Amino acid sequence: MTALNLPFSAEEYARRLAKVRAAMDASGIDVLFVEDPSNMAWLTGYDGWSFYVHQGVLVFHDEDPVWWGRGQDANGAVRTVWMDDANVVPYEDHYVQSTERHPMQTLAALIRDKGYANKRIGLELENYYFSAKAYLTLSEELPDAELVDATALVNWQRGIKSDEEIAFMRKAARISEAIIDHVVERAEPGLKKNDLVGEIYAMAVRGAGSEWGDYPAIVPLLPSGSDAAAPHLTWDGRALQPDMATFFEISGCYRRYHAPFCRTVFLGKPPAFLVEAEKALVEGLEAGLEAARAGNVAADIYAALAVPLERAGIERGARAGYPIGLSYPPDWGERTISIRPGDNTVLQPGMTFHFMPGLWMKDWGMEITESILIRESGPAECLCNRPRKMFVKD
Amino acid sequence: MTALNLPFSAEEYARRLAKVRAAMDASGIDVLFVEDPSNMAWLTGYDGWSFYVHQGVLVFHDEDPVWWGRGQDANGAVRTVWMDDANVVPYEDHYVQSTERHPMQTLAALIRDKGYANKRIGLELENYYFSAKAYLTLSEELPDAELVDATALVNWQRGIKSDEEIAFMRKAARISEAIIDHVVERAEPGLKKNDLVGEIYAMAVRGAGSEWGDYPAIVPLLPSGSDAAAPHLTWDGRALQPDMATFFEISGCYRRYHAPFCRTVFLGKPPAFLVEAEKALVEGLEAGLEAARAGNVAADIYAALAVPLERAGIERGARAGYPIGLSYPPDWGERTISIRPGDNTVLQPGMTFHFMPGLWMKDWGMEITESILIRESGPAECLCNRPRKMFVKD
Repeated sequence: MTALNLPFSAEEYARRLAKVRAAMDASGIDVLFVEDPSNMAWLTGYDGWSFYVHQGVLVFHDEDPVWWGRGQDANGAVRTVWMDDANVVPYEDHYVQSTERHPMQTLAALIRDKGYANKRIGLELENYYFSAKAYLTLSEELPDAELVDATALVNWQRGIKSDEEIAFMRKAARISEAIIDHVVERAEPGLKKNDLVGEIYAMAVRGAGSEWGDYPAIVPLLPSGSDAAAPHLTWDGRALQPDMATFFEISGCYRRYHAPFCRTVFLGKPPAFLVEAEKALVEGLEAGLEAARAGNVAADIYAALAVPLERAGIERGARAGYPIGLSYPPDWGERTISIRPGDNTVLQPGMTFHFMPGLWMKDWGMEITESILIRESGPAECLCNRPRKMFVKD
Repeated sequence: MTALNLPFSAEEYARRLAKVRAAMDASGIDVLFVEDPSNMAWLTGYDGWSFYVHQGVLVFHDEDPVWWGRGQDANGAVRTVWMDDANVVPYEDHYVQSTERHPMQTLAALIRDKGYANKRIGLELENYYFSAKAYLTLSEELPDAELVDATALVNWQRGIKSDEEIAFMRKAARISEAIIDHVVERAEPGLKKNDLVGEIYAMAVRGAGSEWGDYPAIVPLLPSGSDAAAPHLTWDGRALQPDMATFFEISGCYRRYHAPFCRTVFLGKPPAFLVEAEKALVEGLEAGLEAARAGNVAADIYAALAVPLERAGIERGARAGYPIGLSYPPDWGERTISIRPGDNTVLQPGMTFHFMPGLWMKDWGMEITESILIRESGPAECLCNRPRKMFVKD
C-alpha cells in the first residue's frame, strides 16, 4: 500500500535519514530504536494516536527503517510511512498491557533476527513513552548488546528546519493568529471559559485559509487572576471575571507543526504593577529578539531578556524558551536547547524557538510570547504578526 | 493555600489513600512513587497539563502524600491538591530537560531525607512518563534501596468506582451522547472532517446541561472507508464521501472521567458484507453485555462476544475492551484488565469498562461500542443510551 499524502518529499525524508545516520555514526551506534512519536513521524511519516502502546522505528545504516508496533496500528503505518509494507512489522495484541509478556520481547527478537544482538543499540532513555520496563525488558532479552543512551539524538537533527518545514510552521502561525484574534475579540466578563475553549478548538482545527488544522500537542491554557501564577492549570466552567488578567497559551498546528503564541487580556483597568510588568516584559522580548541571531548562543537571548526584567524587580527562575517544530502530546517542545543561563548552544539559521518568558509569580501571571525563526543575519523573525502587548478591554 | 474546588470529598480521598496503603502493605512497599498523572490526580486531586516534565506523588504509610514536581507547577499543586502546602515540594527549573542533571536526583534526596534510602520503594516501571532514565537515575542515587515494581498498583485500586465517581461518569456519558447525536445529524458527503472535529470539540468542552466539559484523553478518531481499518488515524481536511462508512470514536469527559462511545455512520446504501458485520457485531455486543455480570470474569465477556462474530466469519485478534475511569493523555484506559481470552479477573459491581470490539479489517472498519457499569446483579448497565447500530444516511 502506498502511503497517502506524505507531508514531505522523498528528498526531505532522505535528508533526515542521512542526518540521523551520521549522528549514529558519530556515536558508534549500530542500530537506533526510536519510540518518541515525534521522532517516528519526522523520520518515516508515521502518524496516528497510537503512542499509548509501545511502538517505534528501527534505524539502520544500510537498510530502510522499520516501523514496529501493535497489529492494528500496522494498518495505520502502511498508510502513512514512506517505506514499503515489508518494513512494517506488527506484534500481536496479547502483548498489550500484559503482566505475562511485554512487547519489547518482540522488538528484541526482531533486533536479534536482523543480526544486532551483540551490537551497540541506541535507545531514547529519557523520553516519553519509553518506559523503565521497556528498557529492563530489552536489557534482559539482549544481554550481549551494548545499550547506548541516544536520548535526543534524533531531536538534535530536527533543530534546523528545512524550507518545507518552515512553510508548515508559517501555516500553523496563521492559525495561531486567528485564535488570538478571536480570543481578544470575545473575551469579556461572564463568558464561560469552557465555552471559549470550545471556540478556540473549533478555530484550531478549522485551520486558516484553505489549510486544515491538526490537534495541538497541548490543550489551550488560560488561567486567570491569581491562578495565572500556575501556568498549566486547565479550564473549568467559571466565567471570565472583570478586573482580572487571563493569559492564553495556544498554538495553531499544521500537520503536527506548531507555532505557539501567547497573549494576555485584562478585563478592566489593570493595576499599575501589571502595567509595569508588561512594559518590562515587552522590553525584554524586544531585547531578546535582537540577541536571537545566528552565531549568538541560547543563553544570550536569556541574558538580554533579563536586563529589563531585573531592572523592574521581576525574578523569574524558569527558562525563557525552547525549540519548536513538529510534535505530539504531551509537549510541543523539541527537548534539546533551553533559553537559559548556561545553555551555550550556538543559534543557527533555520532554528525555531518558542520565546516564552512567562511570568508566573505568587499570585499573578502574564504571558506574552513569540514563536521565532533564526535567520541568516539580523534578529530573529517572528512567525506570528500581532501587537506585542497585554490587551486591555475596559 | 486551600485547593479550590476539589472534585471529591475528603472521605473519598481518604478511602483511596487507605486502599493504596493496604496494597503497598500487601507488597511490602515502604514508600510508593507515582508518576502516572491519572494516579496522581486520583490520590491527591492534582490537576494540570504538566506531565511533560517529571513530577509525582510519594505515598507513605504514616504521613500525608507529598507532591513533588517542577517549581512553576507547584503553584498549580497548591491550588489543586488536598494536602497542605508543606506537602508540595518543588524542584528548580534547571533540572528540566538538562543533560547535566536530572530531576530524579532531587526526588532521591527527598526520599533520603525522609529516611527511606534503604527501604523498599515502589515504582511504576511500566507507565507513561516514568522514563528509563528516571529509573536509572533513582537506582544510581539510591543504591541501598530496593526498587520494587509497583506498576498498576494504584490503577488496580481505581477499578471499583465509588458512587461519587459513577456520578461523574454519568455526566461524561451525557456529553458523549450529545456528541454522537450531533455527528449522526451532521454527517453528509462534502462535510470536511476537520470542520466536523471542530464541532465535536466545541460540544465536548461545552459539556451537557450545566456541566462543563474537560478535554478527553484521546482526540476524536474518525477514519473512513478503507482507512477505517486503521483505528488510530486522525483527521485531515478531506470531506466525508458517499458510499463509505466512518466510525466515530469519541468520549465526553467530566473532570477527567470518561465515557467513551463509538458509532459508525454509512453515507449511502451499505454493502451487504457491512450489514452482515453490523448484525454480528450487535449480537456480539448484546451477548457480551449479558455476560458482563458480577462474578463472571473478563474473558467471559470476550467469549460471549466471539460466538456471533465467529459464526459470521469475522476474525479479530484484538482485545474487546478495557476499564475506564479518570484519565489523562495519551490514553483513557486504566491499564489493568483486558476483555480478552485468558484474562480471568473477576468482574465486581462498580467496575466500568469500555466494551470496545472494534472491527479493523484489511480494508474496512466499524466501531459500535458501549461504556458499561457492572452492577450488583444482572447484566451490565450501559452508561450511554443511544441505538446500538450503524447509522445509515441514504
